[in-house]
Amino acid sequence: MPDGTGMGHAFTSVRWQRALAWVGQGVSVIDTPTLVIDLDAMDRNLARMAAFAAERGLRLRPHAKLHKSAELARLQMAHGAVGVCVQKTDEALALAHGGVGDIFISNEVIAPAKLARLAQAVRELPTRFAIAVDSALGIARLAAALAHAGVERPQAMDVFIEIDVGQGRCGLPPGGAAVALARQIGDHPALRFAGLQAYHGRAQHLRTLAERQQAIEGATQAVAATRDALTAAGIAVPLVTGAGTGSFPLEAASGVWGELQTGSYLFMDADYAANEPHPEAPAFEHALFIKTQVMSRGVDHAVCDAGHKSHAIDSGLPQVTFPDGLLYANGGDEHGLLRATEGGTPLPELGETVWLIPGHCDPTVNLHDALVGVRGGLAAGRVERIVRVDARGAAG
Amino acid sequence: MPDGTGMGHAFTSVRWQRALAWVGQGVSVIDTPTLVIDLDAMDRNLARMAAFAAERGLRLRPHAKLHKSAELARLQMAHGAVGVCVQKTDEALALAHGGVGDIFISNEVIAPAKLARLAQAVRELPTRFAIAVDSALGIARLAAALAHAGVERPQAMDVFIEIDVGQGRCGLPPGGAAVALARQIGDHPALRFAGLQAYHGRAQHLRTLAERQQAIEGATQAVAATRDALTAAGIAVPLVTGAGTGSFPLEAASGVWGELQTGSYLFMDADYAANEPHPEAPAFEHALFIKTQVMSRGVDHAVCDAGHKSHAIDSGLPQVTFPDGLLYANGGDEHGLLRATEGGTPLPELGETVWLIPGHCDPTVNLHDALVGVRGGLAAGRVERIVRVDARGAAG
Repeated sequence: MPDGTGMGHAFTSVRWQRALAWVGQGVSVIDTPTLVIDLDAMDRNLARMAAFAAERGLRLRPHAKLHKSAELARLQMAHGAVGVCVQKTDEALALAHGGVGDIFISNEVIAPAKLARLAQAVRELPTRFAIAVDSALGIARLAAALAHAGVERPQAMDVFIEIDVGQGRCGLPPGGAAVALARQIGDHPALRFAGLQAYHGRAQHLRTLAERQQAIEGATQAVAATRDALTAAGIAVPLVTGAGTGSFPLEAASGVWGELQTGSYLFMDADYAANEPHPEAPAFEHALFIKTQVMSRGVDHAVCDAGHKSHAIDSGLPQVTFPDGLLYANGGDEHGLLRATEGGTPLPELGETVWLIPGHCDPTVNLHDALVGVRGGLAAGRVERIVRVDARGAAG
Repeated sequence: MPDGTGMGHAFTSVRWQRALAWVGQGVSVIDTPTLVIDLDAMDRNLARMAAFAAERGLRLRPHAKLHKSAELARLQMAHGAVGVCVQKTDEALALAHGGVGDIFISNEVIAPAKLARLAQAVRELPTRFAIAVDSALGIARLAAALAHAGVERPQAMDVFIEIDVGQGRCGLPPGGAAVALARQIGDHPALRFAGLQAYHGRAQHLRTLAERQQAIEGATQAVAATRDALTAAGIAVPLVTGAGTGSFPLEAASGVWGELQTGSYLFMDADYAANEPHPEAPAFEHALFIKTQVMSRGVDHAVCDAGHKSHAIDSGLPQVTFPDGLLYANGGDEHGLLRATEGGTPLPELGETVWLIPGHCDPTVNLHDALVGVRGGLAAGRVERIVRVDARGAAG
């Protein structure tokens, strides 16, 4: 039962929901709109990223904010990932309760109620948890929460100090500001200073390679300045962790980052596909699609059943990947408008399936309770698994 | 169990979820980010809309795509609404299983699997269902689905023909195109031609009253032309249904619409608040808020824990309603950036609560499994009820 500490607990929720699909079903019978994973493409992306990191001796800690799925997190760890990242306490708890064994909240948590939930999990679950900090208050509250929950073992949690490497959001300024916080972490036996969290979010979607190189050069200098200040203060920096699908070859080549937090590579989306690629980046494939169908027809347009309650449009509208020659225009929350890009392209008829690539994969997944995993391709494959989005909506 | 007809069924889903709040809790203890309903404001909005319709002898059928909640739908019906509207089959089924007794799918459904689910519900549940059509194929498939499900009673479902009154999405062209479909509906004893669905979605957010007046004048002519064509063909039009929160005084004054489908009035949002109001429109209040808190601080900005996985930004960013003097800027999926609008405004400190008004209420609600209803205001009120978003994610 809930109490004043706000600690979470599992509960059974009975709510009417349609059976999304069943294992063995042909792709053509999957109802719409549905998020479908091309598992063959996903497996290739998974292997490419794992190989990239392994070949360079880098740790891979994929960001699970993309899929919010305990099953996919465990799959990534089975292929060599050291664990996963999340952004929120409740994502961490949902995945830990789903059996994920190593979770880094790559974000700050300073609310006592959230830290109490986390500390209870640190005490009770086998998962190893890590967290980011950027304030003295956050460190003090974390230590207090662990103590209150009765966590006595030394170095129960890894703590990374976040540095603002150019995004202008969370994190300390580069340089000496990290010294005081690193010392404060060292005052608490339950905490281990594990290094620096350095992620340049805005750089990920800079279209040209030159822009991204410039951004990560700036990030590298910020990290180096901070590391030098800590070293000068006698504090070793065990690890620098960060990077995203748009920038990771740059962090990898810098010699500064030891761990990559790429997330979107697993599924890809239209926004990332629009980036000028880095020559060393693996050629990730689109693996996440929206299956939709036409439910109304006009003379010059068709209407499909996928609107922006089915896919996130914060980074642009979805693109039609099949059939050829169609452009998707905004049709509101529950509809999409399809028009021919050239005069001769036939519009799909009532009931015809259309496949879309989402504009932005992470928030698109967050709109769905489950994803349908298909083996053997979208044309003639079969449903192999239903992937539950365990941490769907978990923003607390 | 699922079978080839794709019929839905209830199932128990066990997934880790944090207890969102508990009845009796003070507002200050609600964790973040959370969608909070100011129940006092909501009740006033509910009463104002009910009074507007009643005073004019108009039917009120609120659109439940806003709240997707069986509880709120039943509350609206307890205050005089004849039923509710939804956009999708699975919304209808979720709300019917939640005890809502009259549901109009104000949208076309032509997929046999969806119609089979609907037909099963028509046969088995006490709910009265209605649907919109805009194609001969849709009517034929609907009739076939009802027959296949063994629905034998006459006029088991009301059917509205949708007319495109200027939105350019679904619906027949105005005028005589409706005659053939109305005759086709009349061929099926299980169906009753109930009138015309006429909704101008794009008009709702036209900022000036003059623009909205022009749009609804066009819509009125389209409906009148269609009604005249049907009358000339000897087919009576029992009802014209449509209108939204942005336009409804115009449809009400036209003498053509007999039923209003306003939805967003119950909660309001920043986008609707930006419209030039109609002099006859009730002064609806904001009743839906995002409670968020500061989790990181910079010199010139604060970071809160509500990003666009917590609130939809398709129609603009949220606005800060408390404290004064802050502007919300996009901080990504899981964060928001808060800056002072004027030099002297103090930024909120770590842990301080900030209240936001969402840009667009419908898709914001759809991101959450439940809403926390507070009585007695946001400053010092208490949690009175947790409103489950029964049809969250139901887009099929």
